[in-house]
Amino acid sequence: MTPTTHWARFRTADGRDAFGVLAGEQVAEYAGELFGASRPTGMSHALREVTLLAPCAPTKIVALWNNFTALAAKLGKPQPATPLFLLKPGSCLLGPGQAIRRPTGYAGKIVFEGELGIVIGKACRDVPPQDAAAHIFGYTCCNDVTAAQVLNENPDFTQWCRAKGYDTFGCLGPTIATHIDWSQARVVTRVDGVERQNYPLADMIFDALQLVSRISYDMTLLPGDVIACGTSVGVGSMPDGATVEVAIDGIGTLRNTLGTGGG
Amino acid sequence: MTPTTHWARFRTADGRDAFGVLAGEQVAEYAGELFGASRPTGMSHALREVTLLAPCAPTKIVALWNNFTALAAKLGKPQPATPLFLLKPGSCLLGPGQAIRRPTGYAGKIVFEGELGIVIGKACRDVPPQDAAAHIFGYTCCNDVTAAQVLNENPDFTQWCRAKGYDTFGCLGPTIATHIDWSQARVVTRVDGVERQNYPLADMIFDALQLVSRISYDMTLLPGDVIACGTSVGVGSMPDGATVEVAIDGIGTLRNTLGTGGG
Repeated sequence: MTPTTHWARFRTADGRDAFGVLAGEQVAEYAGELFGASRPTGMSHALREVTLLAPCAPTKIVALWNNFTALAAKLGKPQPATPLFLLKPGSCLLGPGQAIRRPTGYAGKIVFEGELGIVIGKACRDVPPQDAAAHIFGYTCCNDVTAAQVLNENPDFTQWCRAKGYDTFGCLGPTIATHIDWSQARVVTRVDGVERQNYPLADMIFDALQLVSRISYDMTLLPGDVIACGTSVGVGSMPDGATVEVAIDGIGTLRNTLGTGGG
Repeated sequence: MTPTTHWARFRTADGRDAFGVLAGEQVAEYAGELFGASRPTGMSHALREVTLLAPCAPTKIVALWNNFTALAAKLGKPQPATPLFLLKPGSCLLGPGQAIRRPTGYAGKIVFEGELGIVIGKACRDVPPQDAAAHIFGYTCCNDVTAAQVLNENPDFTQWCRAKGYDTFGCLGPTIATHIDWSQARVVTRVDGVERQNYPLADMIFDALQLVSRISYDMTLLPGDVIACGTSVGVGSMPDGATVEVAIDGIGTLRNTLGTGGG
């Protein structure tokens, strides 16, 4: 199997935005395009001297609902015949280590959802399943943050996009890991160090390749777009000030704190 | 009242993408940024020699549901307490005169929805109602195309984003008209010349200023983003090959044909 590369976007000590490859405690800077041709510049930065940014800037995050057999069973919902999804806008993007912001005027429950994020590498439209892998750049961790009380506030219309679309509610990172075997990996979510989710990605109803293929028939996916594969059992509330970690084997740990300031 | 300017994006006869001001049968080309500083280049093109493009390239289209009192009454739904919306992705954008494409593998009904589109001019987040007008660049016509049978295909999850997010399902144009008095305007939708919708924008539950303000508390709106204000009574099916026109007083007529090719 091809070895995993961890691609990161970062801000240098002197305030420049750059991208490159993270290995251990060093980031090797690259020039060119993250999703195109790139080459090492020869420059290297100590990880502790840079600030990691969200590893990509999706034009959209396609976020799955009801995509794990364990959660479907718990909710008493039949497994869907097609991927069920909503869209989170690019404006909700948040990088690793950055603070999630409570929406102005919203005092209700804010919920974490640890998920696998598929990062698209090549534009795809109507891609058959056997070609899906070639369109995936890699994988990242995602916290699909949700304003729980907004979701069902109106009995006639479930407000998926609003409840999940607030600025800072699309947490991605810390890097994009290429060539991981997600079928052997687990998603572990911790709130202030206490494990709240620990589920196997092999339990997905539509797996990564099926999702890329199926959704590419619904809309063109662009380089840097992310499919958040849906969550499984154990989602819950994150109190103000809490730190949520989403860790996936082979990728790393995405860590964000729910800030208390109005931002 | 400030006179209306009609801003257009267009492709020149020699294949260059440009923007400028449409007046009568001439387009005056501008340099700079459509949503920033711009100035006339002195160059002018005959309208018949250019191809109009979608007048902006939204990062997201925020599409309202149940925002007209007449439609709410017809559906027997109470008027909502907050704007109810879904997101259409930037990838669904279609310009005036371009062909709507039937999704691959979808043989079901495709529905037109004539709507007013608000085009954002300045980034807005948490904008109070009294400041909303300053963040609006202008208005355009929108056909919020929907794959009707996808919408309620799954009993557990209404597929708003999927049914309305297909490539070419976000028709905008022909221009962005500034300083129109939408409260006096009507939206008229015709299918192959036959009038199917004719409703007053004064019937909106949340008006343009309220929408911009309220939604800016839900997510940051960026220059070129569009709020599709929702439709009213009279939506219906567009057969393959049909031409749909959405005309709004003071803006113009957006015209698209539902193509029959698989694209």
